[in-house]
Amino acid sequence: MEKMLKKPDYAKEILEIMHGSFSEEDMLERISDYHENDIAEAFELLSEAERKRWYRMFGPEQIAEIFSYIDDPDSYLKELPLDEAAKVLSYMDSDDAADILDEMDHSTQEKLVGLLDEESGHDIKMILSYEDDEMGSRMTTNFIVIHNNLTIRQAMRELVQQAGENDNISTVYVLDENDKFYGAIDLKDLIVARQQDNLEDIISTSYPYVNDHEKVDECIERIKDYAEDSIPVLTQEHLLIGVITAVDIVEAVDEEMGDDYAKLAGLTAEEDLKETTAQSMKKRLPWLIILLFLGMGVSSVVGVFETVVAVLPVVMCFQSLILDMAGNVGTQSLAVTIRVLMDETLSTKQKFGLVVKEMRVGFCNGLFLGILAFVFIGCYIWLLKSNPITHAFVISGCVGFSLMTAMVISSMVGTLVPMFFHKIKIDPAVASGPLITTINDLVAVITYYGLAWLLLIHVLQMV
Amino acid sequence: MEKMLKKPDYAKEILEIMHGSFSEEDMLERISDYHENDIAEAFELLSEAERKRWYRMFGPEQIAEIFSYIDDPDSYLKELPLDEAAKVLSYMDSDDAADILDEMDHSTQEKLVGLLDEESGHDIKMILSYEDDEMGSRMTTNFIVIHNNLTIRQAMRELVQQAGENDNISTVYVLDENDKFYGAIDLKDLIVARQQDNLEDIISTSYPYVNDHEKVDECIERIKDYAEDSIPVLTQEHLLIGVITAVDIVEAVDEEMGDDYAKLAGLTAEEDLKETTAQSMKKRLPWLIILLFLGMGVSSVVGVFETVVAVLPVVMCFQSLILDMAGNVGTQSLAVTIRVLMDETLSTKQKFGLVVKEMRVGFCNGLFLGILAFVFIGCYIWLLKSNPITHAFVISGCVGFSLMTAMVISSMVGTLVPMFFHKIKIDPAVASGPLITTINDLVAVITYYGLAWLLLIHVLQMV
Repeated sequence: MEKMLKKPDYAKEILEIMHGSFSEEDMLERISDYHENDIAEAFELLSEAERKRWYRMFGPEQIAEIFSYIDDPDSYLKELPLDEAAKVLSYMDSDDAADILDEMDHSTQEKLVGLLDEESGHDIKMILSYEDDEMGSRMTTNFIVIHNNLTIRQAMRELVQQAGENDNISTVYVLDENDKFYGAIDLKDLIVARQQDNLEDIISTSYPYVNDHEKVDECIERIKDYAEDSIPVLTQEHLLIGVITAVDIVEAVDEEMGDDYAKLAGLTAEEDLKETTAQSMKKRLPWLIILLFLGMGVSSVVGVFETVVAVLPVVMCFQSLILDMAGNVGTQSLAVTIRVLMDETLSTKQKFGLVVKEMRVGFCNGLFLGILAFVFIGCYIWLLKSNPITHAFVISGCVGFSLMTAMVISSMVGTLVPMFFHKIKIDPAVASGPLITTINDLVAVITYYGLAWLLLIHVLQMV
Repeated sequence: MEKMLKKPDYAKEILEIMHGSFSEEDMLERISDYHENDIAEAFELLSEAERKRWYRMFGPEQIAEIFSYIDDPDSYLKELPLDEAAKVLSYMDSDDAADILDEMDHSTQEKLVGLLDEESGHDIKMILSYEDDEMGSRMTTNFIVIHNNLTIRQAMRELVQQAGENDNISTVYVLDENDKFYGAIDLKDLIVARQQDNLEDIISTSYPYVNDHEKVDECIERIKDYAEDSIPVLTQEHLLIGVITAVDIVEAVDEEMGDDYAKLAGLTAEEDLKETTAQSMKKRLPWLIILLFLGMGVSSVVGVFETVVAVLPVVMCFQSLILDMAGNVGTQSLAVTIRVLMDETLSTKQKFGLVVKEMRVGFCNGLFLGILAFVFIGCYIWLLKSNPITHAFVISGCVGFSLMTAMVISSMVGTLVPMFFHKIKIDPAVASGPLITTINDLVAVITYYGLAWLLLIHVLQMV
């Protein structure tokens, strides 16, 4: 392959400018050529004293832009005096500012909110009033809005005026004479429209929207499909109070998937690097405790078969194999089913089809692996454990058959259980894991030891 | 909670218009108020004969827009005569058109490409020339580009002219006199600029970009951080050949996470509803076969302890419990580590910190669960299995202690193994699972039976 051109390290270049011997004005001029995300990266590498100098040089508006690219801006905001911090917050997108305030202790939060300018204060308080899982908490109040009775020229003038303060300009929102949401204009259509055109002709009046109290996980897949740069957020009364941007959607999708991923692994929510041991324990223990007690239940079932093992201990060796394989197959079916349930709404016929397909895949894979196990384990017991050949292959036949049975049933359970939880409106990713593990373990243990007991001890009297 | 306002079902409304008794013109006028995504949804619900009527009424440009919102547009494109289909493709975004052509058989693809207009044909062929995992295959050639020697007024005029054909307008890209990439202008800055301002002042010259041959999974996290509506794609020679839009980024993030999610569950790639049994088997079998053989290895180690079980069969009952718990803890650590590795670049110190933290969490959780197991299992063996009390609690002590040990070691293994694979540049999500399961099973089996053998049989002579 062609050698890759070395990418410039913008953050490093910015640091060099910051540490260089230019005049202040010259430095600011040079830095303005860089993207705020790269300036933010350089910023995090400065010492606190250096940063304080830059807070003064940049001024609150640019600091606000830089902070919106920093992972935990609240720790940096604390380096500023309260009134300066409030100015920075006022310049930030209202949702970013709300996120920062959410991270602060209650008294600092109160003080800062009191110092905000009236408009930002109103917007931020409104966003903070929503629950974390409601769309209202994710929206920004930074968007362009005009009335539907304007001419193209007036609309364009409004756009130019509002664009100075609001940077989500690719969709222009339109209100009717009662200030209710009327529709949206694609900025492109406004730009290419001729003076004599009618504004009404470029307004989409049946535009997609979300409600402020709607749950994020319930509408994110739907609004993702519209592939728009922003989607309006309306109240019950059809008042336009904010927009969800494409960046918010990327974040929400990422979070949603991260949470599902975490739940599949038996965590109650996603963890990150900075959490304390206690926080991590809290996210992991709930499942582990449930699993421990369910596991004890399985153990007591295994206990029923103690007599089988007592007379034929070689049988016990393959318990872990069958249980692990049943677990693996169940997890595969679970993962597929959860993703399918998340992405689409299924008819009963499609659901039935999915279960049948999963069982078919389970059967085919089970048959294949069952035969592999029969051959290899038979040879192992015969040759390495020096048992008679018939003995060996009867035992390995038991293993192979149980493996296949366990895999078919695990596939079915791994599909039906999440569907059931989805039906009764419990998040299938959280609830399914422990139940599936337990059912699969039970099925596998009963099939295997039951078969061994029947076939090896009672029918063939192999003791 | 307040009752949620019923959302309008736009697709249904569109179908009602389509099936209504309006004139053609009236219908088109009404439908133009809806979003293409909703029109696409309604379109999929029509019969083929109805759709054919609408292909004619909409014309290729609008059909192209609708098709870009359909999940598998290739099946609908086949309903059009070849020359009409080529027209639709020419109007589509080049990356969407390339995606559709990718799905078709080779001869239809050749014929269609031959019928495209020159510009679209060139763009689509270029996109098709990239591998699926390269950024070049995801880019669109639909963007606004100007030269850096224009005035603000000239730039604005260029924008209006190009916006008719290109709808990714929120960033205007700038070339230098040699037609190489020079920088980017935020559309907002161009709109609010005054006539007498200098274009140079609003150009960001150190703008983030990606290379056409860069791997998608290697740069998606980086460009996501810029939170831009589009990021330019450059060749080695710094020629601007396309852009990656926010929508492409949402898609790539979704895919990336979906794949990691699938891999955690032991699938080689994500599956969907429409796959055949054979396709699904192919994605699931590789891991299952590896796991089967590794499981046989574990079984042969269990075989070593046959004698322990032969003399004290009650010990066997708790094997499944300890193995399952070790597996669960290992999966939790694995999931956390993979997400951390995916999101950030870690220093050696941070890596060491993560391992120590995981072991600490494993120890605390293990201690807690070990004590629970000691108490409950002890009572169970004593009361329900009617064993002497000392007997019972020595056995449950063995279970509790093994549980704790297994959990600490599983946490460590679940963190170190993915780090190791990450270090040697193998995708940790694919490779870690089987190895971790096996190591954890072995550790758990050896600890548990080893301890039982030592303590119960040799030291306490409990037979």
